[in-house]
Amino acid sequence: MRPDDGDERGAPVASPRARLLAIGDELTHGHLVDTNSPWLARELESVGIVVDGGATVGDDLALLTAAIRDACAAADVVVATGGLGPTEDDRTRHAAAAAAGVDLVHDEVSWQQILGWFAQHGRDVPESNRRQALVPVGAFAMPNAFGTAPGFRIRIGRGWFFAMPGVPREMRGMTETFVLPLLRDVLGATGVVHSHWVHLLGPREADAGERIADLMRMRGATRVGITAHNGLLTVRIAVVADVPEVARAEAERVAAEVRLRFADVIVHEGQQTLAAAVVDCLRERGLRLAVAESCTGGRLASALTDVGGSSDVFDAGFVTYANHAKSALLGVPTDTIERHGAVSAEVAAAMAEGAASRSGATFAVSITGVAGPSGGTDEKPVGTVWFATTFRGATRTWKRRFPDLGRAFVRERACLEALAAILRELRADPPR
Amino acid sequence: MRPDDGDERGAPVASPRARLLAIGDELTHGHLVDTNSPWLARELESVGIVVDGGATVGDDLALLTAAIRDACAAADVVVATGGLGPTEDDRTRHAAAAAAGVDLVHDEVSWQQILGWFAQHGRDVPESNRRQALVPVGAFAMPNAFGTAPGFRIRIGRGWFFAMPGVPREMRGMTETFVLPLLRDVLGATGVVHSHWVHLLGPREADAGERIADLMRMRGATRVGITAHNGLLTVRIAVVADVPEVARAEAERVAAEVRLRFADVIVHEGQQTLAAAVVDCLRERGLRLAVAESCTGGRLASALTDVGGSSDVFDAGFVTYANHAKSALLGVPTDTIERHGAVSAEVAAAMAEGAASRSGATFAVSITGVAGPSGGTDEKPVGTVWFATTFRGATRTWKRRFPDLGRAFVRERACLEALAAILRELRADPPR
Repeated sequence: MRPDDGDERGAPVASPRARLLAIGDELTHGHLVDTNSPWLARELESVGIVVDGGATVGDDLALLTAAIRDACAAADVVVATGGLGPTEDDRTRHAAAAAAGVDLVHDEVSWQQILGWFAQHGRDVPESNRRQALVPVGAFAMPNAFGTAPGFRIRIGRGWFFAMPGVPREMRGMTETFVLPLLRDVLGATGVVHSHWVHLLGPREADAGERIADLMRMRGATRVGITAHNGLLTVRIAVVADVPEVARAEAERVAAEVRLRFADVIVHEGQQTLAAAVVDCLRERGLRLAVAESCTGGRLASALTDVGGSSDVFDAGFVTYANHAKSALLGVPTDTIERHGAVSAEVAAAMAEGAASRSGATFAVSITGVAGPSGGTDEKPVGTVWFATTFRGATRTWKRRFPDLGRAFVRERACLEALAAILRELRADPPR
Repeated sequence: MRPDDGDERGAPVASPRARLLAIGDELTHGHLVDTNSPWLARELESVGIVVDGGATVGDDLALLTAAIRDACAAADVVVATGGLGPTEDDRTRHAAAAAAGVDLVHDEVSWQQILGWFAQHGRDVPESNRRQALVPVGAFAMPNAFGTAPGFRIRIGRGWFFAMPGVPREMRGMTETFVLPLLRDVLGATGVVHSHWVHLLGPREADAGERIADLMRMRGATRVGITAHNGLLTVRIAVVADVPEVARAEAERVAAEVRLRFADVIVHEGQQTLAAAVVDCLRERGLRLAVAESCTGGRLASALTDVGGSSDVFDAGFVTYANHAKSALLGVPTDTIERHGAVSAEVAAAMAEGAASRSGATFAVSITGVAGPSGGTDEKPVGTVWFATTFRGATRTWKRRFPDLGRAFVRERACLEALAAILRELRADPPR
């Protein structure tokens, strides 16, 4: 299968392989970001089907037909999203029929469902929607619970080809109701993939990679990779096995090894975001948080309140960008600012203490730094950020000097640093 | 070129065709969304190169080699992102060499740049970074202004193959500095493209599309498209011409037509973000802004302070998530909250007035709503959001009911609504 690199990953378990097709000119022209394929990849992996890759194709019939044919020749399962709408530029059904070498036929069941959808929404049925009841000969239609466009499945070459609408909600419903159950039952997709994530803050990707180079070179059912995303490094461990227990045990064995090598820089583990981990940790301890932000300008508060249910633990946020706002909102003495500068341990501490005392929070964190592009000095160059936490009567301050890789980078790194610090401090204070 | 659908867009200019490759297991496994390809598609189109499609490929050497070979056989230009890191699972350079049928060689210029990057950041050079100085024989290295991984370009079959790092900032810098100029000069992509953007808030994408269907169907050198992004619709007008003046004049002519059709829902025009337009507008008027946020939880403050130079106009932000925080931080009377609920005109008004009076701001805006997933009632379902502005002694309140398409959607829409409202109110109050 992979003659030229001796890479036999996956061979022992012979997982079915899948390819994804994201269809539409709006995707190839870059006017829409494809979020369907990442979602589908995770869902398919959850039933043991490994996604080898995907393609984005426009609405051109010839290119689309070729893409479907190629994908079905290369994979056991091909899942396409998009191009099932009622307008002229929606050509997935035509391309699938051409790739399968069959005609399109009117599917009366699909048509009745389309009529029903319009009746339910009190609308007339535009004539163009009749197109949506066409399926390739030999295909089975998949009803759409959330819209007019039915999907369908058909065998093309060695592959099972599934066509679904591009609207995420419609596609997701159809996947859960029709695609995954079929793959589980009919295709014998009996393997399971267990994934585990270990998130690191601090090391460079290259250094981290060297520390686990041997794990990343492992062959077979276990794969270890590293992803860098806005300063957070994620080590991903994925294990394919016949039964969940085996996959989980092997993933845990590798995770234990990863923990040994990165003990000092691990911030958290699992699929949830760092902010969600902080929210959970606060909730478990019955604590409420206040944040005081200067250079990050609300980004930390926003990251925390992005988490559903964060109102249980998020008390208040102060965005004190201007110096006078630091005094007015947080009670930072003006002479502290004058003497030490806004970017200093003293101001960070006063901000955190002010945030705690002026809200109902039991834990407060502050950030004050130079995000750039301007405002840097020799003594405090762009990227210099002071932090403080105040918790159970103790205030702690520390400084970080982030590389000056742009304003957004410094802001993002400062938020991650604050979130990691909260987590670290809370874990030293176990739930009561 | 497209015999079967009669679509002749682009045919008169015989545009070069491009394919994109997004590389990395984190993409095929669905753990990272590929935003590089949409960005690249728009940039390539801006120099007259049409993107036919793209593919996502994992880190498997054989699959990656085949994907590069196939893409280079099908297109004039192939742009790959990712897989250039220093770790074992980064295999783009090896795959490109295999696809080109050549070996890898050490590139001393690249290596010196990598050494320089580490020296500049005061760090030792990990041995694994030496991998990053390897390029296929016959390739030209492209220096990386923002990181260690150089890119490269090489002819493979009929295609120009470009390999760039996956980190968006590094990739964008390299595209602008090396890829686009080369394509313009060498590949005969000689036209200039003038683009103009008109941003709309309110209409549904399908309805907006119908209003300018005739413009969107235009053939030849002028292309009009609509992009929806978190509730903001952008009409993009792109004109290709031999000289900039002609392109600009034609784009302005079409923009005037677009303005006629969308007069009521246009929020702003141009390439800058809505937040940047607000910052400029405040600066021109010498005003300072305070924001008071409940359901958006700091997102509005963050969007505004993301703009470089926003410290000129951004005074303070209050994230008053909890009811007691609304009272403590902003002076919202507790009985106002009890009587009308936190999501009400009265509370929104008191929040905006409190934000103005407790900061040094001359303009204040507030947001309080139900972002979900929980917290909705029959009377105030998820998506209900109240807003207020206070400016020159007048407080104005209004309500929006956004579709319940998830917490992130409601929060984003609420921020856009607030930004658009600030802009509208400021424009009614011209600079003095």
